Amino acid sequence: METRPYVPWELMNSFMIDVFKAYGVPEEDAKICADVLLESDRRGIESHGCNRFKPIYIDRIINGTLLPKTEIEIVKETPTTVVMDAHDGMGMVASHRMMEMLVEKAGKLGMAGGAIRNSTHFGIAGYWTDMAAKAGMIGVAGTNARPSIAPTFGVENMLGTNPLTFSLPTDEDFAFCIDCATSIVQRGKIEYYARSGKDTPAGMVVTRDGSTVTDSAEILKMLVAGTAALAPLGGGPGDEMCGYKGYGYATVVEILSAALSGGNFMKALSGVSPEGKPQMYHLGHFFFVVDPEAFAGGDTFRKTAGDICRALRASAKAPGYDRIYTAGEKEYLTWLERKDKGVPVGEAVQKEMIALRDKHSLPYRFPFEN
Amino acid sequence: METRPYVPWELMNSFMIDVFKAYGVPEEDAKICADVLLESDRRGIESHGCNRFKPIYIDRIINGTLLPKTEIEIVKETPTTVVMDAHDGMGMVASHRMMEMLVEKAGKLGMAGGAIRNSTHFGIAGYWTDMAAKAGMIGVAGTNARPSIAPTFGVENMLGTNPLTFSLPTDEDFAFCIDCATSIVQRGKIEYYARSGKDTPAGMVVTRDGSTVTDSAEILKMLVAGTAALAPLGGGPGDEMCGYKGYGYATVVEILSAALSGGNFMKALSGVSPEGKPQMYHLGHFFFVVDPEAFAGGDTFRKTAGDICRALRASAKAPGYDRIYTAGEKEYLTWLERKDKGVPVGEAVQKEMIALRDKHSLPYRFPFEN
Repeated sequence: METRPYVPWELMNSFMIDVFKAYGVPEEDAKICADVLLESDRRGIESHGCNRFKPIYIDRIINGTLLPKTEIEIVKETPTTVVMDAHDGMGMVASHRMMEMLVEKAGKLGMAGGAIRNSTHFGIAGYWTDMAAKAGMIGVAGTNARPSIAPTFGVENMLGTNPLTFSLPTDEDFAFCIDCATSIVQRGKIEYYARSGKDTPAGMVVTRDGSTVTDSAEILKMLVAGTAALAPLGGGPGDEMCGYKGYGYATVVEILSAALSGGNFMKALSGVSPEGKPQMYHLGHFFFVVDPEAFAGGDTFRKTAGDICRALRASAKAPGYDRIYTAGEKEYLTWLERKDKGVPVGEAVQKEMIALRDKHSLPYRFPFEN
Repeated sequence: METRPYVPWELMNSFMIDVFKAYGVPEEDAKICADVLLESDRRGIESHGCNRFKPIYIDRIINGTLLPKTEIEIVKETPTTVVMDAHDGMGMVASHRMMEMLVEKAGKLGMAGGAIRNSTHFGIAGYWTDMAAKAGMIGVAGTNARPSIAPTFGVENMLGTNPLTFSLPTDEDFAFCIDCATSIVQRGKIEYYARSGKDTPAGMVVTRDGSTVTDSAEILKMLVAGTAALAPLGGGPGDEMCGYKGYGYATVVEILSAALSGGNFMKALSGVSPEGKPQMYHLGHFFFVVDPEAFAGGDTFRKTAGDICRALRASAKAPGYDRIYTAGEKEYLTWLERKDKGVPVGEAVQKEMIALRDKHSLPYRFPFEN
């Protein structure tokens, strides 16, 4: 059961928009950014929601590694493709503009693709692929990120947690959406283990000296020091359980994010200069949109996708498990549970909200202050 | 070291073409099929090479579940998309035609996509994506297959081993190519363990009763009986090591293979009728081609992709490992080793070759007969 107090969606949305505006983000852009962050909370992906509002977005605007005004430059445009330079502005704003363009292009020609360079954190990749799914289209997206994953047979943090994300429209109330890192877990999950006082299961990280470490606080220190790195999906450093597949998909995302846009990659994305100072992240993202109407038809696609999901859920359960889910289903169930309640916020976020409100004299009073 | 005798590439190619022709495959189609099978052997992917020539292709032509003459019907075509019906002909012939069309379309408009229904085994997915890479383009392909993988929290064989395959052009002598099943391993790997008298590592399969089985011969029996299923990449039946990601990608491939083409899926792909007789497989495939020239340019793409691969290989090795590979590299090294020698064939394949030659009175003498 949720023990954190809820903040109504409208209140949180309005507050975030006002804070973004206070830091120089134009109102229309602030609306996009707040919606992306809140969509994470609607889905229960709390590593990417209002937990990140202050530490990732506001703090980076303050330290100069994220520009509040997003100057989108269209570097190249064809009837099916777009290359953008986000010039270190809000990655969410550039991505939103990109997906609007690609959905329109795919609606005309069946297929569209885009890439953005010199961008910043774009929130959950599933937000962008779901923009396609809401238009009845297939969405594919990925982004590079500061280096965290070690290659198979390696121990050095080389690849971002690089999500390879797909949304596929169905005839149900929600799209099939697999939105996940190509590592076993993201750093955020280990932070969660550390906060909860839990050990990290063996095998989620690889260490320089080959030792097995499960102490979550220790792992976080080692990740920063570079003496540990995240293992790719399937595990590492060896290939016994085929971690070379997760490593391969992480590399696909690294290449597509940088090579289609002509942008940066790997160690250049650390956010830290050689002198140890914060510097621009220069991330790259890629997006593909496919309209099933240009294939066997949208109705056929959605019915088949729905039939496959329903058959999977109805299949035989493993001993000890009473339900099988399809990707996107748990997130939809979280939304149904939170829809009328709002977003649950923990103590750290409450303090951040109060501090931001007071600093900017914003006219809000939060339910948790009662 | 290789202990099996080698058969020169040209000899094996010519022999396969003549056998295909003896079973009614038109010469041009036979050339395509032989090249796809031999490409697997060039890469060392022996589960899909000449080992499969007789048991998968010839035997299926004989039992009527694979038609030697491929009647390709173009169900739908737009400037960027193609939907085909292969009418139970050779999946490799239909896929070859598809990729030729898509590479041409992507060359004009930057993006192209295709789907095939009522198809049959199309060989290695990497053959098709590499057709794009050889043209300087990005290739993506997948196919469904007879149900083998259990969903997370489940134990029933529901999804094919469903490869999700990418080829990305580089500035090196070979493309980056990740061509792999979305299960931890394919059935073929467990057959290999059984033949070698080895146990299957725990965790690669899930069982109906929750027991752990490592006896490879026993696992193969259980897979046929439906009392075991393959675990998705990341493991199962639980989600401790994030097997829901492999399950999610397997489902993406299942949906795209059937829903874009309007074809069959899951249990309908078993190749066995309700009465237990062999029946048509009715597989579905999908293909996407993206031309980097429509983005930041082909040279930029290839240079960045190559730089990323080189940096990965140069990164710190784990204790006990002295080399890091990138996807497609081991396969290229196998080709260099086999180029002047030919394809190594084991005893079972030798016997099949002799029997096929004698049956059709073909004028061949093989090196292993000396």
